[in-house]
Amino acid sequence: MMDKIGFIGLGIMGKPMALNLLKAGYEVQVLKSSGGVQDLQNAGASVFEDVKTLAATSDIVITMLPDSPEVNEVVTGTDGVLNSIKEGSLFIDMSTIAPSVARNLYQVLGEKGVEALDAPVSGGQVGAESASLSIMVGGNASAFERALPVFQAMGKNIIHIGSAGAGQTTKACNQMIVGITIQAVAEAFTLAEKAGVDLEKMREVLLGGFAQSRILDLHGKRMIDKNFKPGFKIKLHKKDLNIALETGKQLEVELNATRQVATQLEKAIEMGNSELDHSALYLSVNQK
Amino acid sequence: MMDKIGFIGLGIMGKPMALNLLKAGYEVQVLKSSGGVQDLQNAGASVFEDVKTLAATSDIVITMLPDSPEVNEVVTGTDGVLNSIKEGSLFIDMSTIAPSVARNLYQVLGEKGVEALDAPVSGGQVGAESASLSIMVGGNASAFERALPVFQAMGKNIIHIGSAGAGQTTKACNQMIVGITIQAVAEAFTLAEKAGVDLEKMREVLLGGFAQSRILDLHGKRMIDKNFKPGFKIKLHKKDLNIALETGKQLEVELNATRQVATQLEKAIEMGNSELDHSALYLSVNQK
Repeated sequence: MMDKIGFIGLGIMGKPMALNLLKAGYEVQVLKSSGGVQDLQNAGASVFEDVKTLAATSDIVITMLPDSPEVNEVVTGTDGVLNSIKEGSLFIDMSTIAPSVARNLYQVLGEKGVEALDAPVSGGQVGAESASLSIMVGGNASAFERALPVFQAMGKNIIHIGSAGAGQTTKACNQMIVGITIQAVAEAFTLAEKAGVDLEKMREVLLGGFAQSRILDLHGKRMIDKNFKPGFKIKLHKKDLNIALETGKQLEVELNATRQVATQLEKAIEMGNSELDHSALYLSVNQK
Repeated sequence: MMDKIGFIGLGIMGKPMALNLLKAGYEVQVLKSSGGVQDLQNAGASVFEDVKTLAATSDIVITMLPDSPEVNEVVTGTDGVLNSIKEGSLFIDMSTIAPSVARNLYQVLGEKGVEALDAPVSGGQVGAESASLSIMVGGNASAFERALPVFQAMGKNIIHIGSAGAGQTTKACNQMIVGITIQAVAEAFTLAEKAGVDLEKMREVLLGGFAQSRILDLHGKRMIDKNFKPGFKIKLHKKDLNIALETGKQLEVELNATRQVATQLEKAIEMGNSELDHSALYLSVNQK
């Protein structure tokens, strides 16, 4: 018998991920209050009134929620997962949240005999729909082995990074590098544009050398085309860099460029660009 | 008859570049005072006492010098190139200097009937030795066409970017992106290391997603291996970012991340790391 999976959070990412679990043959249980519940029900998912009943009848509970407070509330709040989840079950949070919160959930669930994994993803809506997400996993090796077939129904590049929190730390690092690289390309393109240099030619020649990056390739193209349809939204990247900065504070690491890019993203939000793709950072660099 | 080339500046880069011109069959003329003159003479170059005589007898004069002041002095100084170069000759500066200086040289040489190209390179010593440099060229199309066979004896990825100064602007942008990306990887690796995450595993998973870059690949590996043998030295990268910042000032562009990385490089120099590879920026981010 395959594991029965309770899936909480049916947004842009969660809905296609849960649909892929159904396609792979899992019994999927969702909440009536979730946004995408109708599509899931049509595809064969069972619908539950509340978290308590859902968690009590699931072998694996997966959360895919906006941020740390939402995940915390669903797990540790009144009638949350923690109150009803069966001993021996597995809890997997696939949201992007603070590593410290992930470690705390691992701790409190562990005290109830429930293993927990932090398994944030990258690859966006396209990756979620095509079951080709990258999944960065923190937690015990045994829990990872148990979850692997479930991950394989949703992603391709699935790596067990280390102990609890390691998945979220890796995701934070990913978002730092992506954000700072966008800033780098935005500054270079702004300087070149003001100097009258052809950006498309410059992008091409730089892609042939040490400045090469997927960001220069894809987000550089977006900047040249002024195509800022998301993609990954400015406001979400700002949230992710806050996680990185908060983690840096806890570990006493100075993250100067990360902080600078967070400020730049804040400026982009103040300009009214929070719903645009993160390559629209260019618009806040390339102004005066 | 092939063009007679006067080559000024036989350092780590200039020497192998001049040797490659000899290999390609060019008559190469060098200065007695240049560091690498003996090797060039052995390979068949003619040796001259001073810039004036060298420039007067060359069809093409190439400079490969440390910075803007040196190039300026060689061209516009007493008994410099400008005083003796023949009308109809071609001047090519392949050093990395300020775009504004390149444009000024183009101007003053043009007034003497001499076309000028700014043609900075990337690819380092290895690229210079193997004649596989990337060459970013600014100046008139006719001058570019004339110089192309000469460039092809030294490089592979040869692109005419735009008018005078465009090559140097592109090089400045390259150095900005490379420097900021190194900073990005250094901050991510520092955070991950303090959090106890395996850096090699993290590098691997991040190379599979949007954080992918040649810097994460090669310089990330150097940081993990603590291998900071240059490569490209911290002090040279600092010089190049100064050019970018000066250009930004002239064009009234705010380059916040570039400035931040320049400060970080300055810190690395104060730590005594100026002769190390630029990936050693990691050492100044990852301290405390």
